[in-house]
Amino acid sequence: MNGAETLVETLLASGVRVCFANPGTSEMHFVHALDQHPEMRCILCLFEGGVSGAADGYYRMTGEVAATLLHLAPGFGNAFANLHNARKAQSGVLNIMGDHADYHLRFEAPLKGDTVGIAQAVSHWTRVCSSSGKVAGDAAEAVQAARSKGGQIATLILPANTAWEEASSFAVAAAPPPLRRPSVAEVKAAANALRQPGAILMIDGPALHSDLGLLAKRLTKAYGARLMQPFFVSRFRRGAGALKIERMAYRIEDNLKLLAGAPSLVLCGTARPAGFFAYPGLPSTPDDPETRLIELCSREMDIAWTLHALSQELGEAELTADDFVPEDRPALAEGAVTMAKVGESIAALMPEDAVVVDEGITASAHLAPALRRAAGHDVLTITGGSIGFGLPNAVGAAVACPDRKVVVLEGDGSGMYTLQSLWTMAREGLDVTTVIFANRGYQILREELAAMGVNGVGRNAQRMFDVEGPILDWVALAQGHGVQAVRVSDMAGFNAAFSEAMGQRGPRLIEVVC
Amino acid sequence: MNGAETLVETLLASGVRVCFANPGTSEMHFVHALDQHPEMRCILCLFEGGVSGAADGYYRMTGEVAATLLHLAPGFGNAFANLHNARKAQSGVLNIMGDHADYHLRFEAPLKGDTVGIAQAVSHWTRVCSSSGKVAGDAAEAVQAARSKGGQIATLILPANTAWEEASSFAVAAAPPPLRRPSVAEVKAAANALRQPGAILMIDGPALHSDLGLLAKRLTKAYGARLMQPFFVSRFRRGAGALKIERMAYRIEDNLKLLAGAPSLVLCGTARPAGFFAYPGLPSTPDDPETRLIELCSREMDIAWTLHALSQELGEAELTADDFVPEDRPALAEGAVTMAKVGESIAALMPEDAVVVDEGITASAHLAPALRRAAGHDVLTITGGSIGFGLPNAVGAAVACPDRKVVVLEGDGSGMYTLQSLWTMAREGLDVTTVIFANRGYQILREELAAMGVNGVGRNAQRMFDVEGPILDWVALAQGHGVQAVRVSDMAGFNAAFSEAMGQRGPRLIEVVC
Repeated sequence: MNGAETLVETLLASGVRVCFANPGTSEMHFVHALDQHPEMRCILCLFEGGVSGAADGYYRMTGEVAATLLHLAPGFGNAFANLHNARKAQSGVLNIMGDHADYHLRFEAPLKGDTVGIAQAVSHWTRVCSSSGKVAGDAAEAVQAARSKGGQIATLILPANTAWEEASSFAVAAAPPPLRRPSVAEVKAAANALRQPGAILMIDGPALHSDLGLLAKRLTKAYGARLMQPFFVSRFRRGAGALKIERMAYRIEDNLKLLAGAPSLVLCGTARPAGFFAYPGLPSTPDDPETRLIELCSREMDIAWTLHALSQELGEAELTADDFVPEDRPALAEGAVTMAKVGESIAALMPEDAVVVDEGITASAHLAPALRRAAGHDVLTITGGSIGFGLPNAVGAAVACPDRKVVVLEGDGSGMYTLQSLWTMAREGLDVTTVIFANRGYQILREELAAMGVNGVGRNAQRMFDVEGPILDWVALAQGHGVQAVRVSDMAGFNAAFSEAMGQRGPRLIEVVC
Repeated sequence: MNGAETLVETLLASGVRVCFANPGTSEMHFVHALDQHPEMRCILCLFEGGVSGAADGYYRMTGEVAATLLHLAPGFGNAFANLHNARKAQSGVLNIMGDHADYHLRFEAPLKGDTVGIAQAVSHWTRVCSSSGKVAGDAAEAVQAARSKGGQIATLILPANTAWEEASSFAVAAAPPPLRRPSVAEVKAAANALRQPGAILMIDGPALHSDLGLLAKRLTKAYGARLMQPFFVSRFRRGAGALKIERMAYRIEDNLKLLAGAPSLVLCGTARPAGFFAYPGLPSTPDDPETRLIELCSREMDIAWTLHALSQELGEAELTADDFVPEDRPALAEGAVTMAKVGESIAALMPEDAVVVDEGITASAHLAPALRRAAGHDVLTITGGSIGFGLPNAVGAAVACPDRKVVVLEGDGSGMYTLQSLWTMAREGLDVTTVIFANRGYQILREELAAMGVNGVGRNAQRMFDVEGPILDWVALAQGHGVQAVRVSDMAGFNAAFSEAMGQRGPRLIEVVC
């Protein structure tokens, strides 16, 4: 048995069942070891950003850590952006990064790079394995690290010789250490604050897609506190039957209004809200300077225990139908395309319990009001703000939930960063419908330029915001990756295409010219 | 005047004329400043790997530093792989990375990341600007750093407020410091070694594409030493009229034979040769243990001075026609497609002084014998081994040399990492012909698995090596990016398509099914 074999057996024995991969030469022995274990599902992505984004989406929908198989420093570089998004989503991801044989590193081989430096720039836990006999133990610790503190990025760097040299046996990951908890005194103080009218409890993490949300709703209802969530979260429930939770907005100006006048803001599973960027003349944080900020439970801490402890103090009010979003499906929209109408038609047609991966950026703001009236669905958002998250996350979500329809709302600018994920959807037959909003440019940049107080767009700026001349043909791009696609320019066309996609299984792409 | 304006004026005053860009919100003030200066050529790439690869190709063909405009940590992450290749090519690249306003960094904004960590993992020089008044001075130093030691990666991180806050005036980059030189005693020792029959002088850097090559040839000829070059280099001359220089091979086994028995190996502008990877049972380095290794002049040192100093010691023999590759164009190949035949037809049709960007990986080995018989051309190779280099480098080379035909030899696996560069070729009307070798898989991995001593390919491995089911349709992919394309499956088709591409200007793609 060699080190690579002990790695694969350790992953399997520790409950890791899926490996998203883009391997290179230094990972050949792992590939061979994977061959001996068909019970590990290996999914090839043609670009490493697809690998890391898929592992993120898989964790968001299952709470289970997937492995990634990445090649050296530059391969990890390609995975970096979606690891950043995964980190901000608090997803547990286990990266296996191959490296040169350790004795080869003193020479200047072309692919020699700073594997540790780039890994540490985005990982919570990084280790270089020092010998084949330690691969199993290190891998078990890496799995544990990825599962710790509510989900972390763990990167194990395996020099090629630790893969091919002899090793004895596999190991099993220990359970993650207990989560830290706030003190009883801190809980009492937060509970007292939540008894004041207008106080806010802001929650994130599992509280947004499990019964913990019901608990949070009942305990805030007891004294009439507001229950809120951040704008960018790993996963939240929306549509008919979803618990009513106020969602923060994207723009700092809107959030200043949302939080104005609250006597206190209690944070449970989230950090202090901050502007997406700083803007000249606006504050970095939207909370009212008069508001008492209570950072009760950070996102790495024990959110479940904390909410239960709060309920012990505050009691729980019964929930009524009014605490949930009612059934109110919009009708199909007709006529010329607007984003609001596309939202209505999606809401009219999307099946119960879909997974919506939302990277529509500027388009999504216009879609959201209608999507709140759709059948109940989960929403995955771009937690780290790094575009190119949508298509890869959809791959992971679809692998995680083969019986649920996955719908990607994607900008044409953002979709281009990781379009290779379309191929993986086709190869794996994933049930993903991608809607591309083809506004032929980086609309967000046009809007941000104005938000920055910069007026007037000249030729150089124009040419950095517009993606036309030539126009991207998303139908051809999808077909090039093996995905069926259609372009629509009115609502009748959209309704027909989206309805057909909802009625069938497998990957599809709809380009909406807008 | 604000910091962003002083940045752009400093770049222009320091001779930086081209900016490859994929900006985000934190770079909006730079975009606005660029608007005031149309003399800065701004070229949009739809993915950051296209940005960094283009800056690399531009430097390789001009020796001039281009700026990149990148967004925060994840945007830099996307640029990382081709910065790695640029670093190994010793290309000078100036990265401008925006960041949050410095006062915003204490909050947990979604895009907050380890900008310094990721920059340092690939840059020779990294600095975070501390105030708007220092932008100009820092930018001037960054330009100088990028031009120092024969070409470096310099990364200047500019918090958004340093861009929008007041500043006074621009600065001008100082000349780079003088290059280090070996001592006279070291030169004399190396010259003595080169007097022995069978001794080798190995050169790289400017010596491979300037008159320094002639000098190296004359001084080695004086005593009959061998003149060699590494396999992966920034740029070298090939085809009719090129100086005869022995090129190292890819495989360590071949290089062991090439270097066997040499009494000494003198390195000038290059490091000790090393295997692309380590392999079980093979040495890391191909030089003969009996050979005296003389590391005379590293690639950061003064290669020109060193070669002149050697010639002072050794004298120079006259060169004759026999020292140059003769005219010997192959005829057009006919019949079924083989890689060797594609090489012959390319060699038959390619115009004088083309630029060949070689990322054909396994295909290129079969093409090379014929391409040595083509008209004289420059070759750019994948110095850092990180795939996804070809299309972006071609963008940079074509911007650098608008009057020369650029030909990209590209694998179907490797091309997928940065296919977005096709769009930039179309938008800028770049004269690039891309030839995709569609073997529908990572052929290099199939071969490396065997080289690693692993035999037998099972289902998991098969599915990580093969890029089919579905097959990538490169014609559709190219057209989706606005590039004309054709698929050919025999030599008649290839000859017609390549001949047409050579006869016209603008981007084209030919998919060769093989």
